[in-house]
Amino acid sequence: MPIQAISWSPSGAVRIIDQRALPEAEITRDLESAESVAEAIRQLQVRGAPLIGIAAAMGLVAGTRDLRTAPRKIFLPRVAQLSDLLANARPTAVNLRWALHRMAGVAQTTPGDGAAVWERLQAEAMAIWEEDRAMCRRIGEHGLTILADGANVLTHCNTGALATGGIGTALAPIYLAHEQGRKVHVFVDETRPLLQGSRLTMWELVHAGISCTLITDGAPATLMRQAKVDVVLVGADRICANGDFANKIGTYGLAVLARHHGVPFYCAAPWSTVDVTLADGDLIPIEQRSPAEVTLIAGRKVAPDGAIALNPAFDVTPARYATGFITDRGIVQPPFSDGKERESLP
Amino acid sequence: MPIQAISWSPSGAVRIIDQRALPEAEITRDLESAESVAEAIRQLQVRGAPLIGIAAAMGLVAGTRDLRTAPRKIFLPRVAQLSDLLANARPTAVNLRWALHRMAGVAQTTPGDGAAVWERLQAEAMAIWEEDRAMCRRIGEHGLTILADGANVLTHCNTGALATGGIGTALAPIYLAHEQGRKVHVFVDETRPLLQGSRLTMWELVHAGISCTLITDGAPATLMRQAKVDVVLVGADRICANGDFANKIGTYGLAVLARHHGVPFYCAAPWSTVDVTLADGDLIPIEQRSPAEVTLIAGRKVAPDGAIALNPAFDVTPARYATGFITDRGIVQPPFSDGKERESLP
Repeated sequence: MPIQAISWSPSGAVRIIDQRALPEAEITRDLESAESVAEAIRQLQVRGAPLIGIAAAMGLVAGTRDLRTAPRKIFLPRVAQLSDLLANARPTAVNLRWALHRMAGVAQTTPGDGAAVWERLQAEAMAIWEEDRAMCRRIGEHGLTILADGANVLTHCNTGALATGGIGTALAPIYLAHEQGRKVHVFVDETRPLLQGSRLTMWELVHAGISCTLITDGAPATLMRQAKVDVVLVGADRICANGDFANKIGTYGLAVLARHHGVPFYCAAPWSTVDVTLADGDLIPIEQRSPAEVTLIAGRKVAPDGAIALNPAFDVTPARYATGFITDRGIVQPPFSDGKERESLP
Repeated sequence: MPIQAISWSPSGAVRIIDQRALPEAEITRDLESAESVAEAIRQLQVRGAPLIGIAAAMGLVAGTRDLRTAPRKIFLPRVAQLSDLLANARPTAVNLRWALHRMAGVAQTTPGDGAAVWERLQAEAMAIWEEDRAMCRRIGEHGLTILADGANVLTHCNTGALATGGIGTALAPIYLAHEQGRKVHVFVDETRPLLQGSRLTMWELVHAGISCTLITDGAPATLMRQAKVDVVLVGADRICANGDFANKIGTYGLAVLARHHGVPFYCAAPWSTVDVTLADGDLIPIEQRSPAEVTLIAGRKVAPDGAIALNPAFDVTPARYATGFITDRGIVQPPFSDGKERESLP
């Protein structure tokens, strides 16, 4: 059974599994305020493009629950302020801004004072979560068509239950294949610098009883050359109108290697990841994270004093490398035009 | 100034810098016996294809110095026994067996009892070391021709002063360019699982005052796409007659990425790395190291209990990906035929 990465605490706080602590410790945190949710997103205690959208929406609810008695003119500006704070926690993921934009729209169009608007915000956050759960399932169903019995899948980073409100994006077809009794084996890139592959994806898959092998990020090329990989499945943090997409650093290299070896390469993501306001990948802002994530591992110095490190969190894969995009709307090909969900994104 | 990775202790032991402890601590170890040299090679306290050849030759000398009073019929079998032990410490590197084969030849052809043979062995170990130092310099001189002023070089693993008796193989052209006042900048792959790039190459380059930037193993593709890499320089642990070569896991992926982006890709290695007894790369034995090197980092568990990991230490890059081979004999192209040095290799 896939685990559940987010929930409400009895007091109405946002309850998360602290993903930085995995796999050594399973720590649950109750985030009482929008500020603490933003901080948890920034520190990657909660991560994964869909999950941080849900967490931000829930954080807006948790962070305004003490303002329920406030009049509209106090409540709405506070929602806008906290929404800005949450939106800026991670610059690359579009789901975060998408979820918050949706919450803002609901706040604006719901009449009444704090209490009424807050109730509606809470319902909207629950709707975002429920839709995400259903979306994961649909991605899984569409993706199932490309996973033959006995398939060897290579994946990067974490795109599973820990990254979403449901069974994941790129891992969803794998969960469903396993559920249906098909044999699948997953090669998991450890995904430096933050090791989401070894720490999170391996943890999820081992818990679910799915056959998996951990490898370093330098190993996929040789596995492909040895014909041990049938398909590469990765997620996306943002997909442009032309199909260029941003995902964890290392994804673009996998795409080139897959192309070179004739291995199908699929990007699996919710349709909400598509940002038609960006024509192509050159326009995606790439988050540069702290060099210390590269020069320190587990608190231990692995580079000498004075070492300079470059730590782009994401790279951009041009659309032409993707065999297809597995979305909740089916396996689709770019260019992507404005869908119903996207038309209101700023 | 490049550092010196190996020397004799006053008592005749093999003195090494424990490379596992870098960059946190600079620990010098005096290895008194051939067994302790073999163990240090196995544990990667001393590593780098040329350096382990030198270390093994010196280890044979250190390990037989108490037998100098023994008759020939006692001394020679002991040399053969210790030589076997040392040769099996790492299966992939050819220099190790090459150096030991050379030492065995000298032992066989030197007349007399322990004392005479031992003196000759010591001289031969010193010759191997001196030749290595000169070889590094020649690789550097030949490689200098491909490094324009202002060049951005990408390298993998450690192929510098810590890997040889001199200024390294793939790093030698960089040291010489810097010595001559050319501007060079080096992107250093951290090189998981053992982080020889971040721990050793960065340490060497920072100490030498050479401009360098540490990156994760997933980052090179994007740097190449952004035209930030002018040339890739890697080493080799074994080069076959047809030019296929084994090097640290991740090298083959870099070769494919370089080809895809039109970036020149050179393998720099001493001619002694060429093993003409192997027709092609399929015949190179690939060392499979402990999965714990992947599932643990700095003693901390980074994968869940029950996680299976694959840890091939090397991969094979087919010859066609190499723009050229920078050797002490010049920049050469395969196929490689039997050179003087190689004709006696078993």
